[in-house]
Amino acid sequence: MGILLTIAYDGTNYNGWQIQKNGVTVCGALSEALTQVLGGENFSVLGASRTDAGVHALGQRVHLMTEGETRVPLEKLPQVINSALPRDIAVNDAIIVSDSFHPIRDAKSKTYVYKIHNHLHRNPLMWRYSAQVKTPLNLKMMQSACEYFVGEHDFAAFCSTGSSVNSTVRTIYSLSISENDGLMEICINGNGFLYNMVRIIAGTLVEVGGGKIHPNQIPEIMKAKDRTQAGKTMPPQGLTLVEVFY
Amino acid sequence: MGILLTIAYDGTNYNGWQIQKNGVTVCGALSEALTQVLGGENFSVLGASRTDAGVHALGQRVHLMTEGETRVPLEKLPQVINSALPRDIAVNDAIIVSDSFHPIRDAKSKTYVYKIHNHLHRNPLMWRYSAQVKTPLNLKMMQSACEYFVGEHDFAAFCSTGSSVNSTVRTIYSLSISENDGLMEICINGNGFLYNMVRIIAGTLVEVGGGKIHPNQIPEIMKAKDRTQAGKTMPPQGLTLVEVFY
Repeated sequence: MGILLTIAYDGTNYNGWQIQKNGVTVCGALSEALTQVLGGENFSVLGASRTDAGVHALGQRVHLMTEGETRVPLEKLPQVINSALPRDIAVNDAIIVSDSFHPIRDAKSKTYVYKIHNHLHRNPLMWRYSAQVKTPLNLKMMQSACEYFVGEHDFAAFCSTGSSVNSTVRTIYSLSISENDGLMEICINGNGFLYNMVRIIAGTLVEVGGGKIHPNQIPEIMKAKDRTQAGKTMPPQGLTLVEVFY
Repeated sequence: MGILLTIAYDGTNYNGWQIQKNGVTVCGALSEALTQVLGGENFSVLGASRTDAGVHALGQRVHLMTEGETRVPLEKLPQVINSALPRDIAVNDAIIVSDSFHPIRDAKSKTYVYKIHNHLHRNPLMWRYSAQVKTPLNLKMMQSACEYFVGEHDFAAFCSTGSSVNSTVRTIYSLSISENDGLMEICINGNGFLYNMVRIIAGTLVEVGGGKIHPNQIPEIMKAKDRTQAGKTMPPQGLTLVEVFY
């Protein structure tokens, strides 16, 4: 049977979502917990998003496929899995999905938040969950740059090399920035994201906020499809996968 | 000369503020950094609040006394100390204070926040900074209990044994609770706090929210001066010292 789990994690101590040779991964830790919980049952897991090392999630979705009915009732499943998981990972929800469901293909959009702590001094309670930018950023300029990203565009300039995709065209449905007491939150929703796309858009907005790029230069950068014209890739700890919509 | 530092820390990995025989403490880590920064200079540090193991601070105040003028200019001091501190501690401000200044005696009031994550499932991004309460809490009942704590009262019922104080009378200037997406924040300001007082008040409010204590029972509990009638001492990780006012 197919079950869709909603899971949250603090990515600080993980080498990303995807199981790999080196390092502890979120998928690896979840699989270990599921092995305990499901006893001898065979199962497979597939995440909606391959979050990178250090990236967090509040609403990652994981497609759990089991051979038969699980021995744990569905409504108890999150709690039971949580008791087998380390405290920096938690299952928040479990629902039955149809046999044809696919967690990546069927995702209509995803929301990410990128947090910037814009302060000369670091905030020890936020370093795990935000990137510090010491120079003052102009919020209004950053906000006026947002509109240029919204819509269907070729985001080749906002994609790290090393990814193999058929097309670099994606649609951003919304992009906004708010600020509260020095903590900026960039919230982005789109139908799909290229490798490091959110972190490069965040880095480009930081350049806008620092006066190095003018908002109306964004269309040119997009058109040039040249990675070097966009901002830096911001560090992973500022990024959180908030929600995957089906 | 006397310097008042404002410091923030994530208390997760520290055995509290005060230097002691066992374990790494915030004051110990700060003193090590200051030894590096001030070179051979003699100095002493005294914190405004002796926060317990696991308790956090955004605005702890530390009185730094040096023999002469520090070799680092005052405006550079926070940055220079921060470069010698681990990333879970940071100095945010440094000001000169008079010779007669005393960080504990001269404090007019302190503000603490206690965070409760009221959800069946844990939030991996909040476990360091909040206490999870799984059963649903009635926010309105908790809010209506707050008024009974405000004012000058004998808080003997809300104090852990083991503390030696002349008087258990303290004045609470304000106490409020807000809730956002399952995260409750209890914000309390008062002229002084007994040992574990905020954590016991938080525990009592949790009993109110869970229906075990009625708001109008608070005055009786206060009058009885009986620790066993108040709620449990909530765990340290939910507590943050937000500000000390002079």
